[in-house]
Amino acid sequence: MGLPDVLNRMPFNDELGIKLVEAKGGHAVGELELSEKHSSNPNTIIAHGAVTYALADTIAGAAAASANFSLTPTIDMRIDFLAPATGGTLQAEAEVIRNGNNVAMVNVDVTDDERDIATAQGTFKTSGGDETSAWYRSEIDE
Amino acid sequence: MGLPDVLNRMPFNDELGIKLVEAKGGHAVGELELSEKHSSNPNTIIAHGAVTYALADTIAGAAAASANFSLTPTIDMRIDFLAPATGGTLQAEAEVIRNGNNVAMVNVDVTDDERDIATAQGTFKTSGGDETSAWYRSEIDE
Amino acid sequence: MGLPDVLNRMPFNDELGIKLVEAKGGHAVGELELSEKHSSNPNTIIAHGAVTYALADTIAGAAAASANFSLTPTIDMRIDFLAPATGGTLQAEAEVIRNGNNVAMVNVDVTDDERDIATAQGTFKTSGGDETSAWYRSEIDE
Amino acid sequence: MGLPDVLNRMPFNDELGIKLVEAKGGHAVGELELSEKHSSNPNTIIAHGAVTYALADTIAGAAAASANFSLTPTIDMRIDFLAPATGGTLQAEAEVIRNGNNVAMVNVDVTDDERDIATAQGTFKTSGGDETSAWYRSEIDE
Repeated sequence: MGLPDVLNRMPFNDELGIKLVEAKGGHAVGELELSEKHSSNPNTIIAHGAVTYALADTIAGAAAASANFSLTPTIDMRIDFLAPATGGTLQAEAEVIRNGNNVAMVNVDVTDDERDIATAQGTFKTSGGDETSAWYRSEIDE
Repeated sequence: MGLPDVLNRMPFNDELGIKLVEAKGGHAVGELELSEKHSSNPNTIIAHGAVTYALADTIAGAAAASANFSLTPTIDMRIDFLAPATGGTLQAEAEVIRNGNNVAMVNVDVTDDERDIATAQGTFKTSGGDETSAWYRSEIDE
Repeated sequence: MGLPDVLNRMPFNDELGIKLVEAKGGHAVGELELSEKHSSNPNTIIAHGAVTYALADTIAGAAAASANFSLTPTIDMRIDFLAPATGGTLQAEAEVIRNGNNVAMVNVDVTDDERDIATAQGTFKTSGGDETSAWYRSEIDE
Repeated sequence: MGLPDVLNRMPFNDELGIKLVEAKGGHAVGELELSEKHSSNPNTIIAHGAVTYALADTIAGAAAASANFSLTPTIDMRIDFLAPATGGTLQAEAEVIRNGNNVAMVNVDVTDDERDIATAQGTFKTSGGDETSAWYRSEIDE
């Protein structure tokens, strides 16, 4: 099973509508079409910051995974919000900027059709998890 | 309309099941009951990091709002994941550690019934948003 | 007194050898020549992470100040270390990615002659500080 | 050679006057006496944010090292500034909040005699560095 299938089969990604478009060699692209359910406002669409975060984390993780041929749990991530996302399709583009033995560092930018929505910087585990981790022995084919 | 009503009426918080339990004087508590839809794994419950982030961001924002009597958009947040969340109810407890004229800084910890799941540090806007912001003129009663 | 003079007259920047090369319209460049005193190792030069941080924070602050014609105290910053800095001259290049009424968000990259050393993301106050702040009424000419 | 000796012999720590007071079992305490050279202002002492960062990073690293009996390079750190440091002695207290096979996560608070100055959250490498790293084979006795 390839990486897009793994990510697209994750229930929470399915719930939100996150789609991995491409992930190869440490670079990944994904998207999410905004609707009322993603909003933090009952009267209009202003995406909850966690929707943008979800897309950023998932696509950054896909970039890390594509460079390591294994699942890469998120260790930490910082997200900066640049503008409210008020509709349309969010696009995320992620790039591994350092791929070490133990961790990968990934930069990811989220945009909508018109402007920059957020930028995030994350650190991901690359060595397959601790034996005590629920993620241990998780594997993906390429 | 009080702060709990505002937050609990946010469609995305409703979608995820985030509940604000308490928010007063810069301190807030909230929770989220985990189920299959929150998982990043189709076979078992391992909460997607963005679920934990959503709870942390929302409750930290509630703490900031409770100290400022206005909505407080997230400027940036860093989250560190300490252990996978594999079920039960996630609890978040947030505390404003600096409440300035322009920004509030908030620390928030997420736990489940047994252990520490994540810790996050966020910066929130306290002066009601830019005139150009979609959040401008948003108001809450206390 | 222009921005370069203000920054270059800061005692700690002088102590470290940080030089602002250029700051205009939200973009800034600076550098620091590494020597033994910057090292975290008594036998060889491996720059202490705080040296790289000092350069990143200072030049990012200069970028923010150049877009706001006032001093812009750092609210928070995250730095990711990509490779050890083992000598030569560190270069920092910073860009304001959002310049709001209250805060500016700045991305800054640090490189040496050969590779990427660090990347950082910071949030800076743009409205001149709280009345209670030691920075209040600080001003710079352009 | 014990951990305090290793840290106190680092040239940059010596330059700044950082002193490790205690480091054991994932907990560390250190301090730095502020003087004119640490200032970002030529007329008075307002510590440059990088001075506070330097203390936070060093003492957090000591906490991580004390739990792993090896040097633990900083992967990333976020620092939030709560109040300006205007003199006296800065104190840092750090605690490992997760000590995994590959990374340790550390929280560190910086105070002066009167108030909270900064809080930081860092991720440190615990497995001794990449073979390609300048830190490889660095060792400390306890």
